[in-house]
This record gives sequence, C-alpha cells and structure tokens, in this order.
Amino acid sequence: MTTRIVLDCDTGTDDAVAIMLAALHPDLDLLAVSTVNGNVALPNTTENTLRVLDHIGAAVPVHAGAARPFVRPDFPIPRDVLNAGNPDFQVAHLDLPPSVTPVQDSSAVRMLVDTFSDPANADVVLVVTGPLTNVALALIAEPRLASRIHSLVLMGGAARVSGNVTATAEFNLWVDPEAARTVFSAGLREIVVVPLDATHSASMTLADCDAFDALGTTAGSTAAAMLRHRIRQDQTPDSHKSQASAPLHDPLCIAYLLRPEVVTSSGRHPVSVETTGEQTLGQLVVDTRPWTPEPANATVAFAASAPVFREVLLEAFAPGPARSTSAP
Amino acid sequence: MTTRIVLDCDTGTDDAVAIMLAALHPDLDLLAVSTVNGNVALPNTTENTLRVLDHIGAAVPVHAGAARPFVRPDFPIPRDVLNAGNPDFQVAHLDLPPSVTPVQDSSAVRMLVDTFSDPANADVVLVVTGPLTNVALALIAEPRLASRIHSLVLMGGAARVSGNVTATAEFNLWVDPEAARTVFSAGLREIVVVPLDATHSASMTLADCDAFDALGTTAGSTAAAMLRHRIRQDQTPDSHKSQASAPLHDPLCIAYLLRPEVVTSSGRHPVSVETTGEQTLGQLVVDTRPWTPEPANATVAFAASAPVFREVLLEAFAPGPARSTSAP
Amino acid sequence: MTTRIVLDCDTGTDDAVAIMLAALHPDLDLLAVSTVNGNVALPNTTENTLRVLDHIGAAVPVHAGAARPFVRPDFPIPRDVLNAGNPDFQVAHLDLPPSVTPVQDSSAVRMLVDTFSDPANADVVLVVTGPLTNVALALIAEPRLASRIHSLVLMGGAARVSGNVTATAEFNLWVDPEAARTVFSAGLREIVVVPLDATHSASMTLADCDAFDALGTTAGSTAAAMLRHRIRQDQTPDSHKSQASAPLHDPLCIAYLLRPEVVTSSGRHPVSVETTGEQTLGQLVVDTRPWTPEPANATVAFAASAPVFREVLLEAFAPGPARSTSAP
Amino acid sequence: MTTRIVLDCDTGTDDAVAIMLAALHPDLDLLAVSTVNGNVALPNTTENTLRVLDHIGAAVPVHAGAARPFVRPDFPIPRDVLNAGNPDFQVAHLDLPPSVTPVQDSSAVRMLVDTFSDPANADVVLVVTGPLTNVALALIAEPRLASRIHSLVLMGGAARVSGNVTATAEFNLWVDPEAARTVFSAGLREIVVVPLDATHSASMTLADCDAFDALGTTAGSTAAAMLRHRIRQDQTPDSHKSQASAPLHDPLCIAYLLRPEVVTSSGRHPVSVETTGEQTLGQLVVDTRPWTPEPANATVAFAASAPVFREVLLEAFAPGPARSTSAP
Repeated sequence: MTTRIVLDCDTGTDDAVAIMLAALHPDLDLLAVSTVNGNVALPNTTENTLRVLDHIGAAVPVHAGAARPFVRPDFPIPRDVLNAGNPDFQVAHLDLPPSVTPVQDSSAVRMLVDTFSDPANADVVLVVTGPLTNVALALIAEPRLASRIHSLVLMGGAARVSGNVTATAEFNLWVDPEAARTVFSAGLREIVVVPLDATHSASMTLADCDAFDALGTTAGSTAAAMLRHRIRQDQTPDSHKSQASAPLHDPLCIAYLLRPEVVTSSGRHPVSVETTGEQTLGQLVVDTRPWTPEPANATVAFAASAPVFREVLLEAFAPGPARSTSAP
Repeated sequence: MTTRIVLDCDTGTDDAVAIMLAALHPDLDLLAVSTVNGNVALPNTTENTLRVLDHIGAAVPVHAGAARPFVRPDFPIPRDVLNAGNPDFQVAHLDLPPSVTPVQDSSAVRMLVDTFSDPANADVVLVVTGPLTNVALALIAEPRLASRIHSLVLMGGAARVSGNVTATAEFNLWVDPEAARTVFSAGLREIVVVPLDATHSASMTLADCDAFDALGTTAGSTAAAMLRHRIRQDQTPDSHKSQASAPLHDPLCIAYLLRPEVVTSSGRHPVSVETTGEQTLGQLVVDTRPWTPEPANATVAFAASAPVFREVLLEAFAPGPARSTSAP
Repeated sequence: MTTRIVLDCDTGTDDAVAIMLAALHPDLDLLAVSTVNGNVALPNTTENTLRVLDHIGAAVPVHAGAARPFVRPDFPIPRDVLNAGNPDFQVAHLDLPPSVTPVQDSSAVRMLVDTFSDPANADVVLVVTGPLTNVALALIAEPRLASRIHSLVLMGGAARVSGNVTATAEFNLWVDPEAARTVFSAGLREIVVVPLDATHSASMTLADCDAFDALGTTAGSTAAAMLRHRIRQDQTPDSHKSQASAPLHDPLCIAYLLRPEVVTSSGRHPVSVETTGEQTLGQLVVDTRPWTPEPANATVAFAASAPVFREVLLEAFAPGPARSTSAP
Repeated sequence: MTTRIVLDCDTGTDDAVAIMLAALHPDLDLLAVSTVNGNVALPNTTENTLRVLDHIGAAVPVHAGAARPFVRPDFPIPRDVLNAGNPDFQVAHLDLPPSVTPVQDSSAVRMLVDTFSDPANADVVLVVTGPLTNVALALIAEPRLASRIHSLVLMGGAARVSGNVTATAEFNLWVDPEAARTVFSAGLREIVVVPLDATHSASMTLADCDAFDALGTTAGSTAAAMLRHRIRQDQTPDSHKSQASAPLHDPLCIAYLLRPEVVTSSGRHPVSVETTGEQTLGQLVVDTRPWTPEPANATVAFAASAPVFREVLLEAFAPGPARSTSAP
C-alpha cells in the first residue's frame, strides 16, 4: 500500500537523501515539497530542493515558505558563528546541476493549508525535516487545520544526548523554538519525533557509500556522494571525531513511514520545546516521569536500527520501475 | 483624497466604532476587514464585525483569522481571571441584530497576502486594532510582503502609563507578544503606534454620547450606545474610577489617517515588544534615549487631542451621502 | 587518612542518613553542619539536623542558614502542590526524639565564611545535599572565599534522566536555580555533581534495611527506618512504582569522599543551571559535546555502584569505636 | 534631631557627593559605609570611598562587599561596551589623594547583619546608592534581618523615563536585577525608591558649581569638581546633550532623609524589578494601576525639587562646626 506524503524541508545534504527516498521508494507517493529557512537561507533551500528533484527526474511541485523564524529576525546566534567547527552544517548549494524546473507561485503555507483542508487528503502524512516555521504558520493561520492533519513525523531535538548547536538544542528546533512549541501545542492527533538520539544510533558508513554506488543508479550515487561529504565533515579536526560514519538525520523520518520498527520509542509522552531558557533555548523537553500530570502528545524515537534503515535506502535507490519516475 | 484601508480587528465595543468610522467616513475606502482572537474569542469577533457592518448597511468583505496567539495556545492568564474588575474588557456579543452577511471563505492571512501582494494596492494602509497575530503570520508566511505594506497603524501598548492587563502591558500586545515582536522586526517602511498614552488622553464623555445621538443616524446612535456602555463599565466600583468618560482606543487609529495632528509624537524611535519578561511580558518598549544605538522603526503617539478626535467622529457619523453606504 | 568535611543540608530522610554517615565513619571528621530551606522549611531542617546528631550522640555544631531561595520569596510552585504524588518528598519532622542541643548563634553563611577563610582549613571538603543558597551567599558575600574552598561535592540535578519536580529539574537545583548558577560560575577549583542519574542507579532495598538493622546499632536501625520510609513512599499508588527499593540521594555524596569509585563519570565538562526557562527552570545543563567552546568546571557522576555504596554505609553504621562519638 | 544612617555605595562621582553629604550634614550621623561592585570594580569603589572620607577628614569605618552580582559573574554586557558613549559612567579612580585609612577586616554583609541585628540600632536608616547585592545577601543570609531594618532608601530605576543603560533599565538595578528583586520581595517595612525620574528633574548646574566653590570648604570645592566633571561628560558629542547641567543621582537619597519634600511621590505602589526580560532586564516595575491586585511595598519618587536639593547640599558643605568632623 502506498503512503502519500508532503515533505517540508531545508535542503542540505541529508534532506536531499530524504527527498530522494520519498520521491523514489515504490511504496511512497510524494505529493509536494515545501522549503523553509534553515540549514541554509531560503533561496538556497529552495534551489537545492529543485536540484535534487530535477537530478532524479522527479516531477514534484516545490513551494517556497518562510525566509526567517517567526519571532526572531535571525538565528539566536549568527549563522557564521554557528557553523564554525560544527560537523552538522551545510554548504550553501548542493553539488548538483542548477535547477531547470521553477518553484510554484503559491507559498508553502498556502500549499499546506490547501492540501490538508481537502477532505480527499485525510490520509496524507506530513513529514518535516527542517525548522517548523511553515507548519506552525499554517496551523495558526487556518484554525481548522489542526484537526485535518492525520499524522506529523518530524526530525528534531536531542532528548538524552547533547545537542548539535548548544549543549541541549538540536538545530531544527533551536532555529525556531516558538514555531516548534506552537506545533507541539496545536492539538494534532499524532506527532512522531525523530531526535538526534535516534539518528546518531543509526549512522551510515563508508561501506554504505560503496553499497549505494554499487546500485548503479543516479539516486544511489548521489546519496553516496552526500553521505561521503557528511562523513568527511565529521572527520575534520574541529569536530574531534574520527570514525568513518555519519548520521543521515532526515531520511530516517521517511524510513519510519515505510518500516516503523526502524526506530524504538518508549510510548507517548508530554513533549514540548523550551522557548525562553538562556542555556536551553530550543531544547526538546520530553517528560518521561511516570507520574507526570501533563497529557501525552507525541511519540519520541530514542534509538534506531542502522540495518533496517540501510535496507530501506537500498530498496529506494535500487534500479527498476520506481513509481515517481516511471512515467514515460 | 480618499485613503484606502484594510482593517484587522477583534471586535468589541471600540473596534465597532472604528469599523463604522472606517466604513462611513467619506475620505476613507474600507476594502476589507479581517478578524482575530482577542477581546473575545474568534467566532465572536467575527460575528460582531459582521453585525456592525450589516447594521450600518456597509458591504465590506470580512475574513476570519487566527483563533489563538502564535506561541501560546491560550492567553498567559485565563480570560475569566483577566476580565475580573478590568474596565476595558468586553461582552461576548455586541448588542446588535445577528448578522445576515456570511464571512468570506478565504482566511484573513490569505486576504492580507493577496491584497498587499497586488501592486495595484501599493497605497493601501493596514490598520490593526487587535492582537497582531494575523499580520505577523502574513509577514512570515509570505516573505515578499514586508516590502509591500506601505504603512501600518496599530492600537497597542502603554509607553509611559500603566498597562490595562498588567502593570506594564496593554491587552493587544500582551495577548500575542511574539506576533507583535515579529511585526516590529519585519522591516516595514512605516509603523505608527497608538498606545494607551494617546487613547487615555482623548477620552470621550457622556456629552459626546448626546452629540452622537443628536446626529439622528444609525451610526451615531450605535456609537453613542457603545460609548455609554464603556463609560458605565469604567464607573463600576471595581474600576475605582468615577469620571463620566472613557477612552475609545481603536477609532483613534482611524482618526489618525484622516487628521494626523490628532496625535502628538516625539518622532521615530526604536520600538519593540518584550516576549520573555516575568513582569513585563507584552510590554511596548520605546527607546527614547538620544544616544540609543538601535535603528528607529516606528512613531509612537504619546498624546491625543479629544477635540480633533470628536470632530472626525461627528463628520463620519453625520447624515448625508457617506461613500460606503451611498450605492443604490 | 581522615577527610575533614563541612556538610550543608536540608534534613529530610536521606540527609539524615548522610549526616550519620559523615558523623560516624571513622575516616571522616564532620566539623560542622549548616541547614537551609529545602525538603522542609528552615526551622524543620534545623530541628531535624539537631535530632539526628543528638540521637547518635554526635557533638557537631549546627548553624541555621537561609530561610528562602535567593531571588524568589517562595518555591516556583507552592510546596503543597509540589509534594502531591511525588515519592521523593518529605514529612516535616523526622520521627526521632526532639533535640536537646541548641542551634549555634552564628549563621550558616558566617560559619562557612569563617571556616573556609581560615588557612588551617585548606583541606576541608564542602558537601552540600540541599539547595545551594547558603553556599552561593557565602561565595558572593566574601569575594575571597572562592579561592579558599578546596573541593565541593553536591547532590543535585538530573542529567540524562527525568527530574523529580519537573520533566527536567531535580529538587535541590530547582528550589534555588540562581544560587546554583552562582556556585557553578564562582570559579571553584573542583565541583563534583552527584545527580539523580547516579543516585537512582544505586537504589537501596528492603534487604539493605534488614542488613542495617542487623548491625544492632542506633545508626543502623535509624538508617533502616529512614530507608523503609522512603521505599514505602515509592510504592504508593501515586508514584506508579512497585519495586521494593528507593534511592538514598544524599549519602552518596559522602560515600564518594570515602570511595571515589562508587560513582562513574565521563570526566570534566562545562556545567551550569538554567535560571530562566519556562519548562527547564533549575535544569542541570551538562555540556558533553566534544567540540564545546566552554571551559569545563565540574565532574558529573552519571552512574553509581550499589554494592560499593552499601559497603560504605555498613562500615559507618557498624558497632565499634567510631571516631566522632568516642569522646568521653 | 539626628538621623543615623548606614550607606552602601559603589563610589563614583555622585556617590562621592552623597558620602560627603551624609558625613558632614549636622543632622545626620553616618555610622558606616559599605562598598559594592558597580560604577567601577570593587577594589576601586572601596578605594574611592576611603579617599572621599580621608579627604574631608571623616572617620567612618568602610567595609568591602560583593565583587560581582549575585547570579551573573559579570555585567550582562561587558563594562567597556557599556560605558561607550554613556554620559553616566565613571572613571576608575576619583581625582583625590590615595587613601591612608585602611578598609575594615569584616565584610559589608557582616557589618550589615551585625548593625541591624542590634536592637540599639532599630532607628538606623539604610541608604543604598549602588547595586543591591550586599543588601540582598544580608537579608537572605540572616533571615531575621528583614524585620530589623526600619527603612531603606535607594537610588535606582527609571519609572517613566528611559533608562541609562538600556531603553528601560537604570544602571544600579540592571547590574544585579536578582538582588534588587530579592530586596523588594523581602518584606521590609518601608522602601523609598529614588529613580532617574526624580534625579533628572533636579539636575545641578554650572552656577551650582560656583556656589559650592564659593563656600570655601574642602567639601564644597570637591563637590564642585565632581559636578563639573559630570556636566562635562554630559556635553560630549557622544551624549547628544548640550545643557550645562547634570543629575547628582545618589545624594538625592540623602537629601530625602533631611527634607522629605525634596521629592514628590504618588504614594505607595507594588514595586519590583524584572529579572528575565530580553529587553527589560533590570527594569523597575511600578504598578500604578488603581485596581492592581498586588500589595504595595514601596514609595517611588517621580520628581524632585532642584531648589530644595541645592539648599541641603549648601547647608552640608558650608563652613562651620559640622558634626562628623568636629571631633578633636
């Protein structure tokens, strides 16, 4: 059975792999992609998204969204300062040919409102692999939307491990903590959170790069190149790391749709995002106390399986009549 | 010359007078009204807006907007607690016949984006007399919008006087401080702020009620009824007040468009809204230091003239071929 | 070799065991005890401390300290609300005979300043098992003190496990987060933090109670009674727990002085306490990022050994010529 | 009748005038002075205080206090950045001969606790013209102190005018907002606040400098020199000011003890200090709402009389048998 999805992302290297996975896997139907300020600036996340889709020949409409976080006109600390020495940060443009397909006229928020307001799309899953700005805007701009989104799966947060921008915060939630808090408090039926805890426990290796290459497909070799870039980045002296592996954060959300057992959770908990802490701004707050008085609103993936994740990626990038690109 | 305006409001009694002023004054052209959660809940602000327009026979499209503030799912303190003893708070429904005209299908945010994206509307002034949720959403959802809004006039804040919900905060900014901060940081060309400092310095009296009634028009008698209600509220024992007058906060913004000299300012200053203070949440922060390093972004009205304000209201509510209702 | 210590505590059941361990173990010399507002109000923590020392016949001076946190006149949420359903909270008075020894005239802060200002006490270790109010006050009231305290060992925080008052905060740090942040930023040479991560990994059982009883000493049977009380509390329906064990948070700090291997750490890290977060107030923030730019200031115990802990307690409470009570 | 006072200050130029006024006026008895980190670093405020007292031959004991704010190890922004262009800031050392009298051994906090714990000092007024660190420390370190301090008069805050360090904050409260909030919440019987609103409304002029000089006394010519320095500073291009006058903030608190009518207030209000606002950190919050639910705890001086202030200063610095220096 095919799962229909809309993907909202801030395309850098790992979003690129997520897009390819979503566009190419035969059990998924990628209806639209929206872009948001995040890993790189909005014009770059939009162009990068178009490049990936053009490169694999996938005809999926792309809608540009928010160019800045909701409350703060910029990141809490400047992007340049932030990126210094951080192995998770991204170059402005993916090393792919410039896009030829244009971005849609209508904005990301309008696409989200129109898609999820349509009763025919009651089964569509929303996947977010960037800051939650667009989703929060849509939820508040159109009050009826919260009851129309069946399921939201998002990459973000660091529950029991250190963050990748501060001691406590992961990038996606930290960039727009107010938007994140809005989404967690909006009353959605189901939210699945894939934090660094999960993605770091399913890092991909140089051997995986070779396996992707060996598939002999455009997507396979592109995924291999993206992953090799990430592994190289993780090995810079600045990052104090030396292992030949790197997490592929964003595609793990897509893998979850195909094989839910790829992640391990401890059930539903009250989950929110800190918006005012001096040292905890943007922290994912998961209340695992058994006696908590707060209502549960989300499922958090505390770990993930690299073998299952690898299988899903190999399935999607393998040669053959993949659905999205099979049209004559 | 006619000034074309869009009005975004949370219709209680003073927004009602603002709507009538905007719809009826011969020098104004009210293109559309949008509604927002505020004085009362969204369904009530929308119905109240429709009631006012129906009552004066003005055919202006009404678009419903946000049902809650951006970050917080509810007010910082519950509405019931808030209203206790506060003379500025509002009954759920205006004492006018139920509306017959329906609300528009498209949302407030969509209307704002569409209106201000159209180059033909480069001269339209945006007036906001409620929380800034809708405007902030539109500005962030459509990044090109900030350069398209020519001028924003808003009622909100308490600069040098006490607030009406806390020691430092006025209701409109306090309800959605994050949205307010977003608007002040969005890079708009011109923002004019009309805070309690101005509205309290131009209170209207029972004699003004009589003068409105004496006009012999629907609008005149409706304005008189609204103002009498506000004066009565200000005289309850709870409010510790006894003078037979009350401020008409929201219509002062509209009067400013017609007669800028109705308010007095000290020029442009850096202006923002506090979003994290324990005791200052939602406070309007006007930096009047001569040596401030921050750039000016807004003009703040520190006082207002009751006589000029009165003249404008009487002009608008007088009998005669008022533009908006004169169509056959 | 004997380790000389000063203990600052808010005596409830587990502080009581810590006091007995510090007063009775032959390798420790307990110079003084100071009390602080915390588990129970200051008059109760002081009386409870005196009761424990009187009960075991230990002549150690007790100095009363702060009756409230530094900034907030009360807890962030009222004590009654806080205690509801929380298995870690305490009854007002320990079930021991009323004290006969009086409290000292001089305050806790004066004792701390005088003790650590004396060069003869350069080797004294400061152990804190309550909120850090007294220690922070002493450090700031007397600027020379920071360089005079050789080593501080404290029970507080929840690094990778849920807190016991909120999703993220442990009681001691949450009661006075500003004081805690002050202590962590004061420039002390060595701080060792024993958080819930460690104490929960070395819970004591009903079998341990029996072993304490079997020692046939006052201290042994008192410790058994305190621990039985804690286990019973942890088994109430409210606490959603059923195992017949409970952590003894505070004495683990004392055990660390005797057998450092009782805890496991991952080396020194930058450590602080959040003072402004809405959902993270009082959270211990341990920055374990390998590439962190912040300087390390503390060692955090992420786990502890129940067998080693048990050995130390049995040693201390065993019959025989324990040092502190052997004076004629 | 003589008023006995203890003065806690961070001696720069205006504290210097306050010290001379307190030490020399025949109706005042200055028991002790304590110093705190503020206008300049603690070693400088202490040395400056000793210099002033030595220079006028006043034998008053000086006790050094806190070297940093309670929570933050440093100012919210570095002192250098802060001072740039700000006319209120101070040079490290007053232009007076180095002190010969040594500082007392006992700390400021110990002196405050000892002085106000003594029932014989129930009438002593505590005057604070610097950050409130020492006073807050004393109040929390010794819980019985709050009921022993009869009256506290402090210079700090900006109620309805802009601040002198940020748009909303005055220096003394901003340097240690947590300490200030502690003092306002400590339950003191009477607090009188003298904010910038009062001090700026009673600026002293170059003519006043001449009048001080004309007294022919050491104190008169020292006060003239200090005031001339302040006026010169206010006239730098950076300060965007040009009038030949400057406020003498701190001595106005002392003048209030002698002639309460020197300031105008609107009665007692609930008063506190913001400790968490991004734009309002350290702001004095005066709740003047008639219907406020909060209890009043302080009187705020909203204006002051320059003529009365001038009279008091001239009285104190005039030649003649001033009490404090008349001892053989």
